[in-house]
Amino acid sequence: MKIALAQQNYHIGNFEDNTRKIIEGINWAKEQQADLVVFSELCVCGYPPRDFLEFKDFINKCYQAIDNIKLHADTIGVLIGSPARNPQKEGKDLFNAVFLLHEKEIKAEIHKTLLPNYDVFDEYRYFEPAFEWRVIGFKGKKLAVTICEDIWNMGDNLLYRITPMEKLMPFKPDVMINLSASPYNYAQDIVRNSIVKAHAVKYKLPMLYCNTVGSQTEIVFDGGSLVYDINGNKVKEMNYFEEDYQVFDLSELCQKKERALAVNKNASSPVIKEAENAPVTDDLESAYFYSAMDVGQDVNTLDYLADKKNIEEIYHAIILGIKDYFRKMGFTKAILGSSGGIDSALTQVLAVEALGKENVRAILMPSQYSSSHSVADAEQLCKNLGNPYDIIAIKNIYESFLTELKPVFKDLPFGIAEENIQSRIRGNLLMAIANKFGYILLNTSNKSELATGYGTLYGDMAGGLGVLGDLYKMQIYALAKFINAKKPLMPVNIITKAPSAELRPNQKDSDSLPEYDILDRILYQYIELRQGPNEIMAKGYDSTLVARVLKLVNTNEYKRNQFCPIIRVSCKAFGIGRRLPIVGKYLS
Amino acid sequence: MKIALAQQNYHIGNFEDNTRKIIEGINWAKEQQADLVVFSELCVCGYPPRDFLEFKDFINKCYQAIDNIKLHADTIGVLIGSPARNPQKEGKDLFNAVFLLHEKEIKAEIHKTLLPNYDVFDEYRYFEPAFEWRVIGFKGKKLAVTICEDIWNMGDNLLYRITPMEKLMPFKPDVMINLSASPYNYAQDIVRNSIVKAHAVKYKLPMLYCNTVGSQTEIVFDGGSLVYDINGNKVKEMNYFEEDYQVFDLSELCQKKERALAVNKNASSPVIKEAENAPVTDDLESAYFYSAMDVGQDVNTLDYLADKKNIEEIYHAIILGIKDYFRKMGFTKAILGSSGGIDSALTQVLAVEALGKENVRAILMPSQYSSSHSVADAEQLCKNLGNPYDIIAIKNIYESFLTELKPVFKDLPFGIAEENIQSRIRGNLLMAIANKFGYILLNTSNKSELATGYGTLYGDMAGGLGVLGDLYKMQIYALAKFINAKKPLMPVNIITKAPSAELRPNQKDSDSLPEYDILDRILYQYIELRQGPNEIMAKGYDSTLVARVLKLVNTNEYKRNQFCPIIRVSCKAFGIGRRLPIVGKYLS
Repeated sequence: MKIALAQQNYHIGNFEDNTRKIIEGINWAKEQQADLVVFSELCVCGYPPRDFLEFKDFINKCYQAIDNIKLHADTIGVLIGSPARNPQKEGKDLFNAVFLLHEKEIKAEIHKTLLPNYDVFDEYRYFEPAFEWRVIGFKGKKLAVTICEDIWNMGDNLLYRITPMEKLMPFKPDVMINLSASPYNYAQDIVRNSIVKAHAVKYKLPMLYCNTVGSQTEIVFDGGSLVYDINGNKVKEMNYFEEDYQVFDLSELCQKKERALAVNKNASSPVIKEAENAPVTDDLESAYFYSAMDVGQDVNTLDYLADKKNIEEIYHAIILGIKDYFRKMGFTKAILGSSGGIDSALTQVLAVEALGKENVRAILMPSQYSSSHSVADAEQLCKNLGNPYDIIAIKNIYESFLTELKPVFKDLPFGIAEENIQSRIRGNLLMAIANKFGYILLNTSNKSELATGYGTLYGDMAGGLGVLGDLYKMQIYALAKFINAKKPLMPVNIITKAPSAELRPNQKDSDSLPEYDILDRILYQYIELRQGPNEIMAKGYDSTLVARVLKLVNTNEYKRNQFCPIIRVSCKAFGIGRRLPIVGKYLS
Repeated sequence: MKIALAQQNYHIGNFEDNTRKIIEGINWAKEQQADLVVFSELCVCGYPPRDFLEFKDFINKCYQAIDNIKLHADTIGVLIGSPARNPQKEGKDLFNAVFLLHEKEIKAEIHKTLLPNYDVFDEYRYFEPAFEWRVIGFKGKKLAVTICEDIWNMGDNLLYRITPMEKLMPFKPDVMINLSASPYNYAQDIVRNSIVKAHAVKYKLPMLYCNTVGSQTEIVFDGGSLVYDINGNKVKEMNYFEEDYQVFDLSELCQKKERALAVNKNASSPVIKEAENAPVTDDLESAYFYSAMDVGQDVNTLDYLADKKNIEEIYHAIILGIKDYFRKMGFTKAILGSSGGIDSALTQVLAVEALGKENVRAILMPSQYSSSHSVADAEQLCKNLGNPYDIIAIKNIYESFLTELKPVFKDLPFGIAEENIQSRIRGNLLMAIANKFGYILLNTSNKSELATGYGTLYGDMAGGLGVLGDLYKMQIYALAKFINAKKPLMPVNIITKAPSAELRPNQKDSDSLPEYDILDRILYQYIELRQGPNEIMAKGYDSTLVARVLKLVNTNEYKRNQFCPIIRVSCKAFGIGRRLPIVGKYLS
């Protein structure tokens, strides 16, 4: 039996495009003489559909799409993901389901058992978990079909009490097939390989794991679909960050061989080396059980965060995140404020890579506090990249604000208010040009700034998409150096000079914030690892500093609450995966 | 046995204040010679603590608070809500728990079974559901203690497969006690009365239901704690929107009597009349089972939404929402833009009521497109209210923007971009004054505008708290009239004139939007009732209009995503309870 995997990029709620794409995938698989083609979780509607699932009309459209698709599933079998109605009185209205389409009919339907409900996931909000399990018979083979999270408990994941594969093994399946919509973060590929390999080894069955690819608002799906054979050897790791189609012969996957350690694409990473060197035993249940959090728990956190493998992945994830946001929103052109600082420079380089230089417009908006090199550096960057740019000085507008505010401000000294006025003038100019010509404003804030509230609401915090919002400042540097090593697009001064908002004379970030290499480590402990103040201090950080940083994070929740979606590359990004009460008084 | 209910207002994560308040409640109950005092769900940390629950340090602080509180639970028993650690290996780390404190010890611990995970609720994200049930023995009585949602399934709530009270009845309890954190919406009091009454009637036991009160960012808890006797008669409906303390004699609650229909405080509402007139039988399981959604399903939706009972409740909910937001954020003073329109006028009146006239500063920012009556109306309003105000014309600033943008805009005609520049200048001025003097900016957008995207990001959509963001325009009128009927604070012209943003000559809302009385009905069907286009058209609305309105709602998700928290008064507010993918293509 030949089984094809179609790793595709869907668009949430765009039934027309998704259906067309799935049918194209079926036709491609037919050309390859495949017997079965596998798509990904909820591919019919795109993942995650979120509260669209609460609309009966939306579910009707899913079923209509399946009706259209099944006409193309004639001699070929098709496994597709879709919400399915729960016909029973009890339980929620929907299942997260996979349908087998064959001979132009729905031949089988299975339901997801383990519903992730943490971080960015809300599946328990919508779906009833499966309460019965069976394999799917197809052309003489028994398929053990599971959906994404279903394979993430091998008996040792404390979140769950059921191991779906254990429910399926009594039926003596011939192959394991998993349809996923598994988001990227910079440790996910390692963990994913471990869990799929552990399944193949434990159950002595081949496993085909089909992930989706593409970005949906803030969540990037990285693809990297996997096929492991019956021996626990990796047969294929499909492309990352792009669509990919592959066909596999089941009988080949079932041939017993000497075990060999799979060669991982990332063999340079110490973490992966460790995984690769681990003994392969029949009792691998726990092999996968180091999560993204565990990866970063040692003292070299920051080195790991900024290591070459991760930075290269992050680069591709952000490019895809930008591309898909624009395409799916129906826009082509981006605008951004180019300050001559590293954050805006990096955003500009990434945007040009994602959208093309002709589609990225940089606006340089110097004030009286801008250093001359800032404008020169920003201008040089635009020339290096070849994107259009304009220079609009904000001095006159700023003075008109001060004039009109004089009766209110009287002779009070210059302060934060005046700094923010400048930043908001820039926000207004950028949005004005965006509104006039149909641009989307890219935001250039980094995670360290967002964490500490070092930014101006409606000013430099404005924008439709947070390109760098999940990268700490030290990762910003690493990414900039990675890009410049390929091609020196950013003037070196942009990378080497001390960070400054340039909103008052001789301002430096370090006037207001701890040094970034300390700050970022504390932030990572608190945000990604959810360590409390005592745990962080126990690692050797100054107690006053820790208290100050944690307070900054918590008291600035109200600012982040109004921030745009951030392209997520870590296991804990600001946004829908991190939910805190704004009025909360904890550590603040 | 005397049982006291302490309906209190907590502050999330403010362990010091919450502990102090709970101890005060215990001391009060002791003075009343109560044997037992009941607090509300998660009172130790405040509800909802959201992702704070993921911090071990936060849970430690909950236990420390209990350690402090239990020293005061000497001869008196204390039922308090707190997260509790799950000592078992399996399942999530936490339970949503209630502790019985007595003789300075933790004597019993029970866990919540039904974990709401819809709308604003995410409890399944954090908590493991109870899997064992028992009554709590106390001074010779058996207490059937449940937590909030636990009573919201009497066997006919399809979300759940367990009815916690059925698990407790075999232990032959003497009384039912429920600790809740049940949010307000304008139908909740009716539903709540029905469910508590249905319990008393079905199980032939008295029921004491203790709710929390107070606003936590966007969610308003309305109090209204209830006591029903063994006959199904209402003994007490505690105060709404404020703290309240009451003591009840259990033996009195257990005296069998002739049944009388309870008199509801809202007997004028047709919905309640119907409930009150329903026959009281022993089989009342379904009596409560009309939800907030059902209430509004008839053709008189809008009349219901704007009826006097609801508007009066909404008035109190918003006042509490403003008060608590400021108090819990540590602020006292509000600023807002006062345009002479009804939305800003209403916000200003509510803010003055909540914070005091001396703490509300109105800024009038006329442009060349402002009508003379707008400024006059706004100024008159300030004089009526007696709050400080300033007038800052935006003409000069606006012209300085146009001058600087001239090289970019060239001779393109006036359009949306120029309208938005004006709105964002106002946002900048308001934030500048707020930053300078320590105000929080109140946002004045209504639900109809937010739904359709009829507002300017970083302009009139700026602000820290959305005062009117859960009120459709027709409810805005009803609330304004309700307030003016008590005291004519708003110049009548503000209420009667046609709505306008005044960003271009002779602009009217109706140039861009359908008439509000039609628009609001369509929006309500779509947002609150999750009706699809076919269902809405079936109610007699024009198909082109319906498609246009639904498209407006869906394509403006990106704007609402950056909006501030909205005081929630309906069963479906924009914000944390409504989660949609920004790039989604559904109906757009």
